[in-house]
Amino acid sequence: MTSALPAHPADLAVACGAALDDLRTRTPLVQCLTNEVTTNLVANALLAVGASPAMASVPGEAEELAGAAGAVLVNLGTPGPDQRASMGATVAAASGAGVPWVLDPVAVGVLAVRTRLAGHLLAERPAVVRGNASEVRALAGFVSAGRGVDARDDVEAAADAADALARLTGGAVAVSGPVDLVSDARGQVRLAVGDPLLTAVTGAGCALGGLVAAFTAVAPARTAAVAATTALGLAAERAARGARGPASFQVGLVDELYRLTPADLAARVGTAQQVGVPA
Amino acid sequence: MTSALPAHPADLAVACGAALDDLRTRTPLVQCLTNEVTTNLVANALLAVGASPAMASVPGEAEELAGAAGAVLVNLGTPGPDQRASMGATVAAASGAGVPWVLDPVAVGVLAVRTRLAGHLLAERPAVVRGNASEVRALAGFVSAGRGVDARDDVEAAADAADALARLTGGAVAVSGPVDLVSDARGQVRLAVGDPLLTAVTGAGCALGGLVAAFTAVAPARTAAVAATTALGLAAERAARGARGPASFQVGLVDELYRLTPADLAARVGTAQQVGVPA
Amino acid sequence: MTSALPAHPADLAVACGAALDDLRTRTPLVQCLTNEVTTNLVANALLAVGASPAMASVPGEAEELAGAAGAVLVNLGTPGPDQRASMGATVAAASGAGVPWVLDPVAVGVLAVRTRLAGHLLAERPAVVRGNASEVRALAGFVSAGRGVDARDDVEAAADAADALARLTGGAVAVSGPVDLVSDARGQVRLAVGDPLLTAVTGAGCALGGLVAAFTAVAPARTAAVAATTALGLAAERAARGARGPASFQVGLVDELYRLTPADLAARVGTAQQVGVPA
Repeated sequence: MTSALPAHPADLAVACGAALDDLRTRTPLVQCLTNEVTTNLVANALLAVGASPAMASVPGEAEELAGAAGAVLVNLGTPGPDQRASMGATVAAASGAGVPWVLDPVAVGVLAVRTRLAGHLLAERPAVVRGNASEVRALAGFVSAGRGVDARDDVEAAADAADALARLTGGAVAVSGPVDLVSDARGQVRLAVGDPLLTAVTGAGCALGGLVAAFTAVAPARTAAVAATTALGLAAERAARGARGPASFQVGLVDELYRLTPADLAARVGTAQQVGVPA
Repeated sequence: MTSALPAHPADLAVACGAALDDLRTRTPLVQCLTNEVTTNLVANALLAVGASPAMASVPGEAEELAGAAGAVLVNLGTPGPDQRASMGATVAAASGAGVPWVLDPVAVGVLAVRTRLAGHLLAERPAVVRGNASEVRALAGFVSAGRGVDARDDVEAAADAADALARLTGGAVAVSGPVDLVSDARGQVRLAVGDPLLTAVTGAGCALGGLVAAFTAVAPARTAAVAATTALGLAAERAARGARGPASFQVGLVDELYRLTPADLAARVGTAQQVGVPA
Repeated sequence: MTSALPAHPADLAVACGAALDDLRTRTPLVQCLTNEVTTNLVANALLAVGASPAMASVPGEAEELAGAAGAVLVNLGTPGPDQRASMGATVAAASGAGVPWVLDPVAVGVLAVRTRLAGHLLAERPAVVRGNASEVRALAGFVSAGRGVDARDDVEAAADAADALARLTGGAVAVSGPVDLVSDARGQVRLAVGDPLLTAVTGAGCALGGLVAAFTAVAPARTAAVAATTALGLAAERAARGARGPASFQVGLVDELYRLTPADLAARVGTAQQVGVPA
């Protein structure tokens, strides 16, 4: 997790391509405590990039798997009592074993139960926080106009919050939106990639959280966040071409993740990067 | 909920088209306590017509969202202990805030736990009850030959039950079948719309319940029931044309809901209506 | 369950075709206590072959349905507290009523909670155990290198375990892999059928468990295991032809199950059978 990060955009692109190659070769186990609405899509997205998903959220099993996994995803989308009971122990087991974990703070700032829960979990320092602007602002303690899983806030309005959160965790923070932002101690990366149909499919954000977790099993936090964001965005661009609507788009999205090559990914990371703030 | 309802078939068609237009413009939050088997399809169907789905069924969160939502769906398909604990409070919060709610009494009359639960919930007067003939008859206290989620009873055999139930709740009752029936205090509307493949997809009925809820956020109960039934039915007719089987049909169903225009919907409501009992 | 089994490969093929015909005619209720990640796919696969799925896992309802069902599926993929509480009572109700039940021991041998649970459930003698090689070996008490839902062990390495397990239960054991194995008291059947894309879709194994359960409602255990395995495998072969990746493959898989005829199935059972151990 602490290896040197590429400083140059081209290096980042190469690192992302290499990470996808590693993912397909090493097929790491990714243990997911995730949203019940979208578990199936998350699992299929993970399989499509080469990871081996485990969706064990039962207390006693969740933490058992976390220590042996390559990475762990904690998505707060449907934090029922059993899952809440598993989350603390799972994150602690991951941290204790040096396994990177990713926090997807769905609807944090809107609903009280999960907002408190997210605050507690942050103490275990997720490798990556992946959310929309409202969620990242709420998690960083800023005021938000969010109303659940929608991304009402503009990504740029969450840039400072992302930086603050990254300083707090020591990891990376990925803010999803029309232009995605990844922040860590070394600065910000902006990625112009994706398709508006991603917002018409339930679970596209959850799938991204899962992909980020998969990439943390084989790459440093910032590389993982950039690789996952670009992989999903590029697959979305390709899927949108043949789609008649959101359901055929979703089918295409998983198919295109499966067909994605390391060279494709590296090339798109190269073109997606925007050094400054977009106009 | 109590605004004047269109009396003439053509007025109803116009009102349904306007409701879809409102839905896409206002994107109301629809809070769903729903069947775990079909949550994903329900959420995607809601997104496709313009609503903003929230699937928060955790006690403490469910009722928090209900009061702020445009409408609430309660589907009894998988009434686990946590969900049951949320349902009463959620429905009470919706009623207290004047938020319309829809009851989908899956398998009521077949299984004892949910039949008792449905009886309790009815006291909070759902804007619309959406079920198959067996479920509506069971809910109205008639004998039923149902065996779960199948629609064994004929829709016409549930017409009196639908009327009785509508009198009890003061809202509308939608009975799904080859010809759909919507009953409220002003009488019955029959709609010849849809495709047999709807019965080959798990969750088509649940998706309809969700769509009815979405339309109650922007229209009176009867208009909402007619608009949702016709929207799903028309999307099904279009999806069936290109389908090789039930899974490609389901993909097409959501795509066609997404592509549906207010003018399409109004026109099909106009042709779908049957004034008398079909031969 | 105890009717004479076909001894000749051609008889088995005919019996499998007849079983699919029965399934479509009788549409038996199949009560499923199953994996929350894949419930939707299992339900749609069951509908596609003509069965009537019920996914009632709530304590009090699960056992109520089991006694009235044509068959019961117990899949250990996500054994939360509620589901665990239902499983013992459901299996007991099925056994008491003479209803065949199928055990899918997902990740048994890897995770402690479900491994203990599987041991207890075995005492109620499932008609069929359906798993991958790791799971079957673990359930039979052999050492396994499994790490969850992956099939790391070779099917042939589980052949003795399958025989031992079949002797213990008095039923059949189906081991899924590149070549599938079905064992019961009369010996082993090997089936060369399927497509590698089945391993790229979450829930393909769960769907097979569901199909095996559906066939036990209309056929003896060995016929059911062979018919279900071949039905899914043949549908996979056909779906793979038109697929761009795993998601379009999954859509095609359910479509092809729906289109499968008894004659198709009988013919493929005939060609899939391998009498000896494959080279």
